[in-house]
Parts: sequence; C-alpha cells; structure tokens
Amino acid sequence: MSGEGETEARERFRWWLEIPTRWMDNDVYGHVNNVQYYSYFDTAVNTHLIREAGLDIHNSPIVGLVVETRCQFKKSLVFPDRIDAGIRVERLGRSSVTYATALFREGDDEIAALGHFVHVYVDRATQTPVPIPEQMRAEMEKLCLV
Amino acid sequence: MSGEGETEARERFRWWLEIPTRWMDNDVYGHVNNVQYYSYFDTAVNTHLIREAGLDIHNSPIVGLVVETRCQFKKSLVFPDRIDAGIRVERLGRSSVTYATALFREGDDEIAALGHFVHVYVDRATQTPVPIPEQMRAEMEKLCLV
Amino acid sequence: MSGEGETEARERFRWWLEIPTRWMDNDVYGHVNNVQYYSYFDTAVNTHLIREAGLDIHNSPIVGLVVETRCQFKKSLVFPDRIDAGIRVERLGRSSVTYATALFREGDDEIAALGHFVHVYVDRATQTPVPIPEQMRAEMEKLCLV
Amino acid sequence: MSGEGETEARERFRWWLEIPTRWMDNDVYGHVNNVQYYSYFDTAVNTHLIREAGLDIHNSPIVGLVVETRCQFKKSLVFPDRIDAGIRVERLGRSSVTYATALFREGDDEIAALGHFVHVYVDRATQTPVPIPEQMRAEMEKLCLV
Repeated sequence: MSGEGETEARERFRWWLEIPTRWMDNDVYGHVNNVQYYSYFDTAVNTHLIREAGLDIHNSPIVGLVVETRCQFKKSLVFPDRIDAGIRVERLGRSSVTYATALFREGDDEIAALGHFVHVYVDRATQTPVPIPEQMRAEMEKLCLV
Repeated sequence: MSGEGETEARERFRWWLEIPTRWMDNDVYGHVNNVQYYSYFDTAVNTHLIREAGLDIHNSPIVGLVVETRCQFKKSLVFPDRIDAGIRVERLGRSSVTYATALFREGDDEIAALGHFVHVYVDRATQTPVPIPEQMRAEMEKLCLV
Repeated sequence: MSGEGETEARERFRWWLEIPTRWMDNDVYGHVNNVQYYSYFDTAVNTHLIREAGLDIHNSPIVGLVVETRCQFKKSLVFPDRIDAGIRVERLGRSSVTYATALFREGDDEIAALGHFVHVYVDRATQTPVPIPEQMRAEMEKLCLV
Repeated sequence: MSGEGETEARERFRWWLEIPTRWMDNDVYGHVNNVQYYSYFDTAVNTHLIREAGLDIHNSPIVGLVVETRCQFKKSLVFPDRIDAGIRVERLGRSSVTYATALFREGDDEIAALGHFVHVYVDRATQTPVPIPEQMRAEMEKLCLV
C-alpha cells in the first residue's frame, strides 16, 4: 500500500465474499464503525482458508497469527448494506502470507476500503513459525496477481 | 415463551433474513458466542423496519427502544455458517411491539435459538412513548400469526 | 424475574465487576446497543468463574454452555461510562446454575438493566451434562442470597 | 511506523486509559481477536477527545472521520486481562491528526501492539474538512513528544 490516495479496481481482487452489515456495526455517527471493517477482512480471509484451503480451525496443527493489519477508509458503509469483500495474495513467504483486502458496496465500483493483512503460521502448541502446508500454499497462489 | 423445552417450526415465522456468521462471532469454545445471537435478532428486526416499514434510523421523529429481550439457546452455531433469522409479531400494542425471533442453520429445520424482543416507540427528542405510525403498524400486522 | 416493572437494589447482588463502555458499544441512537448488555453479563459471570471458582477456559474438562438469557432494559447506558455489573446465584442445580445479573451506572443506585443467565455444565468432549465440581459449587453458593 | 520489528517504551505515550478485556474479545484460538485491538485504540482516542478536549459526540458541529489505521501485533492479549492503552500525537495538521497508539498488558513493559490512527475533522452536515477547533488542538498538542 503506497499512499493515502491509492485506489484499486474490483478486477485486482481474486476471491470474494458477500457480507451484510449488522445493526450493531453502525456507530453513533450513523456509519459502520472503523473497527468493523477489520472484522470483514478477517471474515473474508478465514472463510477462504476454511472453504478453499482446508484449514480446520478447531483441530489443525497450525494456526495463523495476525501480525500486522492496515486499512485506508475511502467511503462510508452503513446498515443495512451488502458489502463485497475481496482478497488477493500480495506476498507468499515460507511461513507468512500478506493479503491485500478490499471492501466495495454492492453495485458500486469505487472502493470503500483498502486493507493489508499479514498472517504468520505457527505450530498450535509451541507457537513457533512453521512452513505453510502445500495444499494451503497452492490455494494461496491462486490468489496472486500474475 | 412458555418453557425451556419449547420448540417452534420455521412455518411460524413470517419474515426472514439470511445472516452469515463472522470469524469474530466464535468464542474460545469454538461456537458463536451467546451475545451474538441477540445481534442477529436485532439485525433482523431492524432490517424489516427499514426495508419494509419505512423506518429512517437517521431522521425519523420516532425511535424504537428495546425494553426486554430473551433467548433460549437450543443448538450451537459456528463460523462459517449461514443463519436464517425469522421474526413474527406476537403482540402489537399502541406504542409497543413484541416479536418472537428464531435462528435456524441453513438447511436445518430444527430451531437453533428462540427469542423474544420488545420495542417501545418513543419520540426521538423527548424519549416519551408515542403511538406506532399507521404505515409501520400495517407492516407489523402482516407479521402476526392469524 | 417476575415482571417488566421489577426493580432491584445493589444490595441484592453478591459479586461485582467494573466494566467501562467502549466507543463501539454505542449505536446510531447514541446509546449502548442492547446486545452489549449481554456482553457485560457474560463478562461478569465468566470473570467470577475464572478468578474465584477455578475455571480454566482453555483446559478444564468441563465447559459452561449458556442455555437461556434475558434482560430488562431500564435506563440507557452511554460511552464513555463506567458500569458496575453485579451477579448473584438464584438457583444452583446439579449441572446448571441460574444467575440474576444487573447493571448500574457508576454512582447511580437505580438499576439500568436486570438480567437472567443460565449455564449448564457439560463435558468438553462429549457435550453431555456433568455435575458442577465441588470447588466451583462452593464459590457459587457464596453468591446466593440467604 | 517504520518496520515490523519496531518497538516502543511506555514513556513515549502521553495519555492512558485502562481497558479490561471482555469474554467476547477472545476468539476460537483463545486470544483476543485482532479486530478488538482497534476497538481499544478507538476507545482510547475518543475517551481523550471527550474527557479532555471537549468533544460532544452527540451535538458538536464537527465529527472526526477515521481515514487510516494500522496495527502491528507483538504479543497476545487474553480474557481476563487489564490493558493499558496509550496514545500520543505524531502529526497535527489543519484538519487532521495522526496518533501513535499502544497496548501494554498491565504490569508488562513490553509492548503488545503498536498502532497508527488518523482522524480528519469534517463538518457534521456537509462532511467536508474543517480546521480543528483551538481548544481541541491545544489538548492534542499536549500529546506530542517534544
């Protein structure tokens, strides 16, 4: 993410999840609270991992620790609204993966929020970094821009 | 709501909203936290009010205050999951409306949670009870069991 | 809990936790969202269990499932505010415990919310009811009104 | 914020708020969910604005829009825990203010999370940028490192 004025088109994201806003997401100013944007990113990344990449959050020997996140807020979201949350993989390391994440209002091609999300995979018991398993890595590679 | 063993079929609810769970809804025991069930009820009731009954949460002269809620938890919900949230109107007073609310997992006809939700309408400025406006009342009546 | 007009004094609760509200707790109407009240109850009950009654939420062989909760909302809470959350035990069964829960604004003796919260203890693996362990039961008994 | 390995001492933050964690903050991995860290930052910044800098979130003619946030996660937080949330002002513009934010576990001098939080002040009605009022600016200046 280079600067505050940066924008991105829908085409640059590789996997999508629709997320409806909830009443409680709105804050006192009548918009979705900034904190909830990260919940949408978190939900999109983890849904991909579970549905596409075989992550078992209850039993798998590895877990993804979030080590850094960022968000640039471009447009307000509100309740009720339907959000398209998009992700792609920016960088795929031995134990870590960096995603670019985005939110668009349904039917709107102007980006509402642009995010950055870094997972490091660790052993569930020892909490030390481990290589990303091959099956998972293969699914992550599909999310890279060529 | 008569007792802890009570159940209800999908047919007894009159308006539905699909709500996907979020990563953050899960608690340390690996299930959706009990608190979030109320967020689903809240979201269903308010989405109906806004989409069907003309409530403008930013500018309308009246607001709905929640004065009582209850929930019986029957089955666990998890992330990721799709929830069908159903509502009906149990009692429609001059200023107050009582809903029965329900959650079912997508594709499952056994109720996961049965709730009770009471709104009292008040003047936005004075916070004193006011009659429910006719248009809104008409939409609420459609949610009653005959 | 007998009726909507019921009130309770601070003296009738046996264990207390101070909970500051958070920015995100406020909803679009400028008050703490009804859902968050249950989060305060949940936090008070579990803090008591962990600090006083020896519950280890990560490793203990039993877990407390929430099977029923209720809340009557009496006064608005806001951000920023400090809340005194009080609990007592209403009924102590073999596997289940029923709490009365309350919220008061700091310095205010009028109750803001009166709740009801039922835990059933189950085996972590099989999810079947188990007797409440003796140490935990002894701490719960201290929360009963004589 | 220069790099992922960056750390900061408590002494570099100028205003503090104690925030207890809540049951619901924990996620399925048994730690506070990454999203909640932003809620702690948000709560600290807004509590300072309301208590020290005269912001009236219900009636003031200006509102602070969050345009960018970031967090580096260094150590896990858990429930129950007490968090010291510290803030300082990094850059004070005409309409915008950039905070550095930090979380430390009570009694621990190693930083648990280092954040970045940018507010732009806008007119409540038109949502266009406005100068930060003098009283508010004076309080923000007290949060700068000399």
